[in-house]
Parts: sequence; structure tokens; C-alpha cells
Amino acid sequence: MYEGAIQDLIDELGRLPGVGPKSAQRIAFHILAADPADVTRLANVLNRVKDQVRFCTVCFNVAESEQCRICRDPRRSGEYLCVVEEPKDVVAVERTGEFRGRYHVLGGAINPLEGIGPDHLKVRELMSRLGSGEVKELILATDPNTEGEATATYIALLVKPMGIAVTRLASGLPVGGDLEYADEITLGRAFEGRRAV
Amino acid sequence: MYEGAIQDLIDELGRLPGVGPKSAQRIAFHILAADPADVTRLANVLNRVKDQVRFCTVCFNVAESEQCRICRDPRRSGEYLCVVEEPKDVVAVERTGEFRGRYHVLGGAINPLEGIGPDHLKVRELMSRLGSGEVKELILATDPNTEGEATATYIALLVKPMGIAVTRLASGLPVGGDLEYADEITLGRAFEGRRAV
Repeated sequence: MYEGAIQDLIDELGRLPGVGPKSAQRIAFHILAADPADVTRLANVLNRVKDQVRFCTVCFNVAESEQCRICRDPRRSGEYLCVVEEPKDVVAVERTGEFRGRYHVLGGAINPLEGIGPDHLKVRELMSRLGSGEVKELILATDPNTEGEATATYIALLVKPMGIAVTRLASGLPVGGDLEYADEITLGRAFEGRRAV
Repeated sequence: MYEGAIQDLIDELGRLPGVGPKSAQRIAFHILAADPADVTRLANVLNRVKDQVRFCTVCFNVAESEQCRICRDPRRSGEYLCVVEEPKDVVAVERTGEFRGRYHVLGGAINPLEGIGPDHLKVRELMSRLGSGEVKELILATDPNTEGEATATYIALLVKPMGIAVTRLASGLPVGGDLEYADEITLGRAFEGRRAV
């Protein structure tokens, strides 16, 4: 509907996840009116991300050097290893400030419908990390959905014979939530995992 | 929370209108996984928009040359001039396929609270276009809100003494809408503008 570059920009923005045609148009006009320096900065960082960001050779988190910030940090304990699906899950766990161990990013979860099996994930690399004998506890922090549960079960079956403690994050009612709005599976899990007070 | 470029990208994306921290993260990881050619295309079009897109010297719509596509089109009638606030309003009217006249884009609406008066809009340019005597009807298609109504009223007062017909888009119930969900002002307008059937 628009002429030339502005329409091209709307089309490109509309391909991004969660950006519909109306938002794409809104962002495009924001960019048209924005300070040229801001737009250049956004264009440059888009190119930089593809050039500079790679994956940590140890844990497969996003990194800008051979190893990520967490793997390079000597104060992190190698006795606790937390297995997550994606780099954004590392950020979510880090935000709690509760965990001082290390991570392993699988790069997804087992999903037979989409043809993703253990070979598509960093499972072999996880097993070879565990071979060093340093890890005492493996914490499975995959998503609490079907694919995440299947992945956790699969890894637990592989790791348990190695004599390493394997744990899974607790399921239950979210803090600040309402009991009446909890779905029946979550509420069921909360019952199962009830604790003495 | 992330290292280097990926965090910079999340920050830059988060500054765009309607993109919250979660969407910025989602888009950033989408870009990280995307085909490098797609990302280069997005980065290039961002730069191109600032270089190539300008405003039509006649109607102030977005354009890639001296005049926009509509002003260059000899089949458009110069007798009908539709006044809108923004270039996206031109696209909205064009989409109806009902209007074969020309446009004038004000670049906003009168808004005393934000210090936007008629001098900040292309009102003087509108008056000089009307001076040629070609325009027979001026259609005020500013937004049906306080600022748009004020702008329409202001322009109508200026133009009426020139002997040009001045019209305003009809207000009423949106087609496909529900009478019970219409706000009282819209319903009031629909009563006011009722027509014989």
C-alpha cells in the first residue's frame, strides 16, 4: 500500500514473531520519525548479532567468546548442573538469584511430532560433561509441559545409573496465584507435592 | 542479563513502540536463529527508509520522489480533496476503493495539551492548495476523537468563506458491530445522522 522502502520495512517487520500488520506499520512510522542515529544503531546491532553471537562450547548458552560468562566464572560451583531448554531459561533461573551452579542448554525439547529427538539436542554433550565426575546433582529444569517432561524423563533414565543425583523443579501453585484459577493438573501436582508445615 | 550484542539487540528492540521486554527477547532469539540474508535485508531496509523516504511536496504523504504516487496519478480527480492526519490514514481510505480524489496529510491534529497548534500542521499549505480554485469539495477525514474534531472544525471555519463545500465523514455504528456495545456518544451520533429508508 505504501511506496518503496516504507512498505519494504513494514513487510520485513511483519515477518518477526508477534508483530502483526498494524504493529509493523506503527513501528515503521516510529522509525521514519526517529533520530537517524537510533535507527543506525538498531541496524548495526542486527548485523553485529549475527557476526558476534555464538554458542558457548561448554554449555551451549549464548556467548561472545569461546565460553559464556557463567562457564568462565570460577566462583560458580561445578557440583550442580542445571539442564534447561533455551538460553532464555538460563536468564530466568539467574534472575531468581538462588542458583550458583552451572548450566547445560539443550537447545530445545524432545518433540516427536516435530521430528525432534535426543540427537537434535545437546544430550550427548551433556553425557560427556557428566563423565568428568565433578557433577553431584543434575537439576532438570526443562519446561513443565509434555515435551519438557518427556525430555526430563529421558535424561533421568540415562543419568541415574551413573550414580548422580537427579532432581526436577517442583510443580505446584504459582506464588501470588489463585487456587480457584489453577488448572486441575497443577492443583493435582500441588497436592502430590504437599509438605508438612 | 545476556552478554554483549544479544542484550544490545534486546534493548534496542524494547525501545520500539508496542514491543515489551518479553517480545524483544523473543524477536532477538528469532533473529539469532534466522537466515543471515533475512537479517541483512531487515538491517538494510532500516537504513534505506531513513535515506529514501521523504514527504510529497504537494500533499505530504510519504513518497520516494518529489511527489507521491497519488499526486503523480493523472487519473485522480483534483475536485475532491480529502484531509487526513497521517499517511496511514491515506492507506486506510485507499483500501475502501471508494475515493478517487486527492489527499492532504496534515501531519497530526490540533492538540493544545501537547502544544500542537495549526502552525505545526500543514494547514497553511492546505490553504494555498485551495487557492487554485480546482477543489470543489473538501472532505475532512481527521480522526473522530477530540483532537480530530477540533482540527476539522478549525479547518471548516477557515475554508467555508472560500465557497468550497466542506464535508465530514459520517459518525455512527460500525458495520458488523453490536448496538448494545456501542458507546453512548457513537449511538447518539447514529441517532442524529439517521436516514430515511
